[in-house]
Amino acid sequence: MARKRIRTLRATDYAHLTNPFAPQPLWPGDRVARMHEAALEVLRDLGLRILLPEAREILAAAGARVQEDMVFIGPEIVAEALRTAPRSWRLMAANPARARDYAAGQVLFGPGSGCPNVTDRLRGRRPGSLQAFHETLTLQQHFDVIHFLGSAAEPQDIPPHLRHYAMTRGQMVHSDKPMFVFARGRGQGEDCFGMIRTGLGLSEDDWRAGSWCYTVINSNSPRMFDKPMAQGVIDFARAGQMAVITPFCLAGAMAPVTVAGALVLQHAEALAGIALSQMAKPGAPVSYGGFSSNVDLKSGAPAFGTPEHLKMQLGSGQLARHIGLPWRSASGSASNTADMQGAQETDHALWGAMLAQATMVLHAAGWLEGGLTFSYEKFVNDIETLQLLAEMCSPTGAEEPDLALDALAEVAPGGHFFAAAHTMERYEGAFYAPLLADLTNHGTWEAAGAQGSDRRATAVWQHILAEARPPAGAAEAEERLAPFIARRTAEGGAPPLD
Amino acid sequence: MARKRIRTLRATDYAHLTNPFAPQPLWPGDRVARMHEAALEVLRDLGLRILLPEAREILAAAGARVQEDMVFIGPEIVAEALRTAPRSWRLMAANPARARDYAAGQVLFGPGSGCPNVTDRLRGRRPGSLQAFHETLTLQQHFDVIHFLGSAAEPQDIPPHLRHYAMTRGQMVHSDKPMFVFARGRGQGEDCFGMIRTGLGLSEDDWRAGSWCYTVINSNSPRMFDKPMAQGVIDFARAGQMAVITPFCLAGAMAPVTVAGALVLQHAEALAGIALSQMAKPGAPVSYGGFSSNVDLKSGAPAFGTPEHLKMQLGSGQLARHIGLPWRSASGSASNTADMQGAQETDHALWGAMLAQATMVLHAAGWLEGGLTFSYEKFVNDIETLQLLAEMCSPTGAEEPDLALDALAEVAPGGHFFAAAHTMERYEGAFYAPLLADLTNHGTWEAAGAQGSDRRATAVWQHILAEARPPAGAAEAEERLAPFIARRTAEGGAPPLD
Repeated sequence: MARKRIRTLRATDYAHLTNPFAPQPLWPGDRVARMHEAALEVLRDLGLRILLPEAREILAAAGARVQEDMVFIGPEIVAEALRTAPRSWRLMAANPARARDYAAGQVLFGPGSGCPNVTDRLRGRRPGSLQAFHETLTLQQHFDVIHFLGSAAEPQDIPPHLRHYAMTRGQMVHSDKPMFVFARGRGQGEDCFGMIRTGLGLSEDDWRAGSWCYTVINSNSPRMFDKPMAQGVIDFARAGQMAVITPFCLAGAMAPVTVAGALVLQHAEALAGIALSQMAKPGAPVSYGGFSSNVDLKSGAPAFGTPEHLKMQLGSGQLARHIGLPWRSASGSASNTADMQGAQETDHALWGAMLAQATMVLHAAGWLEGGLTFSYEKFVNDIETLQLLAEMCSPTGAEEPDLALDALAEVAPGGHFFAAAHTMERYEGAFYAPLLADLTNHGTWEAAGAQGSDRRATAVWQHILAEARPPAGAAEAEERLAPFIARRTAEGGAPPLD
Repeated sequence: MARKRIRTLRATDYAHLTNPFAPQPLWPGDRVARMHEAALEVLRDLGLRILLPEAREILAAAGARVQEDMVFIGPEIVAEALRTAPRSWRLMAANPARARDYAAGQVLFGPGSGCPNVTDRLRGRRPGSLQAFHETLTLQQHFDVIHFLGSAAEPQDIPPHLRHYAMTRGQMVHSDKPMFVFARGRGQGEDCFGMIRTGLGLSEDDWRAGSWCYTVINSNSPRMFDKPMAQGVIDFARAGQMAVITPFCLAGAMAPVTVAGALVLQHAEALAGIALSQMAKPGAPVSYGGFSSNVDLKSGAPAFGTPEHLKMQLGSGQLARHIGLPWRSASGSASNTADMQGAQETDHALWGAMLAQATMVLHAAGWLEGGLTFSYEKFVNDIETLQLLAEMCSPTGAEEPDLALDALAEVAPGGHFFAAAHTMERYEGAFYAPLLADLTNHGTWEAAGAQGSDRRATAVWQHILAEARPPAGAAEAEERLAPFIARRTAEGGAPPLD
């Protein structure tokens, strides 16, 4: 007789996570309200330097005072922007099962991004290449707990005026998840939007149904937006694609030395970006964002996963909730190698992001050296943490059968539950199965080569790369994109905007 | 003219931490109440096996039904115990500045404990010795964020009937923090209590002023208390010393395979221990405790820092709050070496303990191999995490000067804050100074030997051991203890109770 099997509640859908934690405040609500007011004062009285004339014109038309390249944004403009900015939207993907609602309470993890270098234990540290870019896409595609793509390793072997073709093509050929596009000028943006529509065969209605890609807009803290960033805000808004306004405020360097002061600056710059987005196109999908941390004041080196980083995450979450928008945070690590420091910094910042109710968490896996290098081994190790957090998002049964009173009656004092009926019915999938954690005893572990988790991770990524198959639709996308890329390449490509 | 210095709020007193986080529930309150009721049903209907006749007699006198070595404890006995069990008490220390209130909302970290082996990068993995025990005490003493002592490395080169003399003496000679005593029978307990009173020169009033040491009572899950554990509960209660009732419920092995089922068992056993304590001596300091996690169901190996471990921490916190007692949790790691796995497991379980509002967090630093080995390097790395958590306990300024509006006006767009007056006034101590984290760039790091955080930790513990000086009063304690130990040794010591 077949024994009955009870499917446990543990089996998590890692692709769709809702934050299970209550948001943790850093400050009382009145101080958060005051910080919002202070940011409005900064925008109105101190203003920002915005290098793109078109952006200044848009804000001037909305009532901002413009003086040469300085723009002074009144609180009524910000209020109007916050009125039209959507609270949620659909982040689309080639595979509809990978699409996600971008909204407060949702959790979306993305890879370590923007790294000029890559490293792994077999090939060492080297500049990012197209091969490495493709490999990191395959790694991102493999794990459901990575919810959107990022520019993990920038392919520096492709010239800058053609690189966006390779990067956008790569994402459609090696993955079916929500995509990333750099904001490096109108020419590249239009190319990338066109490639996505072409590659995925999207109708106009499809394209308008949600945001098929996202870009990260880093203000040039303090109080400045350069041309590509300002143009990116405008272009993504007009195209209905998601822009994540992310001041990168390093307290003590590009931002005040206090947590609160750095966040006032972050908030002012984020509000300015949101205002520009909404004045360019009311209702455009724009995310509040913050990636604020501190520097080592002796060397000026940026630090991540520090108490200050976590406090800024909690404060940013409060500011985002104050204005009612979903927000993007980030993990990170300054470590030079895949060691305990790296794990600690990344883990702590991930906990900070969860407790701060960030919707989007970038740099959640693989970042080293404050973003200068993407590590294959660290990526795999960080996935273990992300999967733990995903498991924490799953419900835990506490109904009568879960209380196991029958099993408690069945097993004698000092006995064990291995063979109890309650166990036998549930043991499959009862617990999270570690990706990498080695639970063997010391003798077994030594006999197997005494490999630390960095070394074990090498075998994992090698296996993933060896076994990877293109996602459904990849060949079709590749075929559709070829003539587009050939034509635009022949036309000279699109150099980045300076 | 001397520039004014503003002392930042960041400078944390690591020795006195209050949990800044809101407790995170795993279940709705009515399910927690039901689990409490289920545990009462277990105690009343299934009963426990208690091997010590004296313990059975105490519970029988309180109204429990006793049948051979089985004891059935009615809910009215538990209710009476929860009425008399104190909500807080003073955990005393040789150095009054090290004394702490043991109460809900406080945070007390302790070292990885109970390890038969120790390891470090210079001397390798080896059985615990008196030398290693003393060294680990010096490491525990060094860091303010370790709030109480533990039996990090058991000195296996001292015979069991004399070992408690060496362990109790060592704690007074190498530290001035709250002390640990094993519950290994009445003879050893009386010896240790006598040594503490003698060594610290305590009057009867001093001794009665609080709890000068603590012991951990592990029930023999499921549903059993062996003789030394039951005797420990009784003896510590009568001596007014703190007993931490800690079922060690590994789901799928010694406990039901479900999180809720394992916690029903944990709760029943903890309530039984609390009942025995309060029936032996109403008002005795007794802590609720839980160290429940899961096993790898393929190998039976215990796992720590897993999603199940964290969920049990959150659930345990709810159960502890339901009965109104402070509670003890634990971090832990199954890793065989000081690697990312080890850091992740420990970090996650520490976050779990914080979010579950544990008062006492044992095994917070140095544990490897599920407690079979205490690692010097991992201890130092884990301290970095504990110091981060301690920093999170410190308030963060958000008053007007913290908002830095002057600095924001002073620094031009695109400029930096390094030399701003607001920065200059505050930069000293503005940020957490890492113990071990290396923020240098890759070239500098490589030139310095490309040391990971495990290797860097070696230099840290070596330095601490080389520079350590005995705490105030150590020589006096040593002198007072010598005749006590000589006499008791001549009398044959005190073998552990079987």
